[in-house]
Amino acid sequence: MNYTAQIKVMPLKELLDPQGKAVLGGLQRLGLQDIADVRIGKHIDLQISAQSKEEAHQMASEAAKKLLANPVMEVFEVTIV
Amino acid sequence: MNYTAQIKVMPLKELLDPQGKAVLGGLQRLGLQDIADVRIGKHIDLQISAQSKEEAHQMASEAAKKLLANPVMEVFEVTIV
Repeated sequence: MNYTAQIKVMPLKELLDPQGKAVLGGLQRLGLQDIADVRIGKHIDLQISAQSKEEAHQMASEAAKKLLANPVMEVFEVTIV
Repeated sequence: MNYTAQIKVMPLKELLDPQGKAVLGGLQRLGLQDIADVRIGKHIDLQISAQSKEEAHQMASEAAKKLLANPVMEVFEVTIV
């Protein structure tokens, strides 16, 4: 069966996110003063052919660990839809 | 009240996603042959101070339209959590 895995990769909470800070400045200059913080990460959609939802989840996690996320700086979350 | 808005920005389905194609090649070389397609976009978390969930949603949509997404190439989706 075919599954879609969504992987969210975000910078660790403990780390500064310079891209997010730059976008926050841009939003405030555009008049969106009520936005207090911005953090930017990646969203990755995978199309996976697997026997079960669990197998698809495992393959997506393996992909994230091996290639998509850098554990020193990022945390990831896998959802199968 | 404070709300967290999650904005998912993805390349339009009609367009090629060269970054996704490159990652797909990398995953297949790592032995993950059952992954058939990869698409890569951005995930943005905003901390918003607003009167209601609807107002927060509107502000996040405005931020996406004005700065975060390029409507020529990307589609976005806002979720308030």
